Amino acid sequence: MSVHDKHEIAKRSILDNARPLIGARGFSTVGIAQILVAARIPKGSFYHYFDSKERFGEELLSLYITDYLTTLENLFSNSQQNGYEKICVYLKFWQNTHIDGKVGDKCLIVKLAAEMADLSETMREIMQHGTAKVIERLADVIQNGQQDGSITKELPAAILAATLYQTWLGATLMLKITKHTQPFDVAWQTSTLLLKGFPELP
Amino acid sequence: MSVHDKHEIAKRSILDNARPLIGARGFSTVGIAQILVAARIPKGSFYHYFDSKERFGEELLSLYITDYLTTLENLFSNSQQNGYEKICVYLKFWQNTHIDGKVGDKCLIVKLAAEMADLSETMREIMQHGTAKVIERLADVIQNGQQDGSITKELPAAILAATLYQTWLGATLMLKITKHTQPFDVAWQTSTLLLKGFPELP
Repeated sequence: MSVHDKHEIAKRSILDNARPLIGARGFSTVGIAQILVAARIPKGSFYHYFDSKERFGEELLSLYITDYLTTLENLFSNSQQNGYEKICVYLKFWQNTHIDGKVGDKCLIVKLAAEMADLSETMREIMQHGTAKVIERLADVIQNGQQDGSITKELPAAILAATLYQTWLGATLMLKITKHTQPFDVAWQTSTLLLKGFPELP
Repeated sequence: MSVHDKHEIAKRSILDNARPLIGARGFSTVGIAQILVAARIPKGSFYHYFDSKERFGEELLSLYITDYLTTLENLFSNSQQNGYEKICVYLKFWQNTHIDGKVGDKCLIVKLAAEMADLSETMREIMQHGTAKVIERLADVIQNGQQDGSITKELPAAILAATLYQTWLGATLMLKITKHTQPFDVAWQTSTLLLKGFPELP
């Protein structure tokens, strides 16, 4: 294994071990000393891997988004499912991550958007590009669903994808605030309505 | 004026002056020294008014919610408007606050939910009770709108109120991430669909 590979593996390990800490406590409140403890690396090693805490935060977010997009591809890989079923698989994944998931698996965008978008322009841009890619991917699946007849064509796929993503972001904030799963029940009802249209009136 | 009144006025002034700072930078990153500067009070005065920074944060959020509920009553006070029009007035208020508003007017719930719900149980509870009251008030107006025929009865008023609130919370997070108003355009489209139902298919 090359020196470069070893360096990258160690770096990845720091980022993986630090993610639950940042996911639970946010970015600003966590100091480098706490990151070192979470990542189980000796003092002083941090700057061997990252130029600054800000740079560490940028890499943490970038890696999170790369991993998320890979997860998305896996979720959408069942060719037996129609577009609607695939979107439901994604929304169930979102729900499970936040209700049953470990803190390290919870959405870093939900956790860091409000905190970091105002404080770091670079982290904001990483989140902007990342969420745009996720919404684009959802729009692809929705468009397929509109073609296979499983999703209503009332809303353009891009708008429907964006609104689903926003609705679930907001629901996850409300889950944090209420510690109840009701916001997700509400998000499911809205999502079904938006994907399927209102049921026919008698 | 009694000593108690003077004390309360001074306290309110500190909270009002500190709100833009917390609204822009969050709670954890702002130190008491910065709050004192923003509130233009001498060093050492902070603990004359608040037992701790946490207690200050709790009072800041409580006051924000009280003010917000008063604003809501003013927005809903036009008896010439039907339920749908009142909800649109509210959503326009939300939009304007975040697009044209000063930072001190922006939603503290959006800013602090993800950061503080995990860090302070008391602040989380204040946000929980506050958002529940807002959603209840929206549900009242929606129910009136369902009775006056301006809002569809497809969704129960309480669910529709919760989903509008969540959708706009999520849209505001996306506004912070993207620095574009498109998330609000999307939220408008979704809100109109949810309030009015899908247009009749030809």
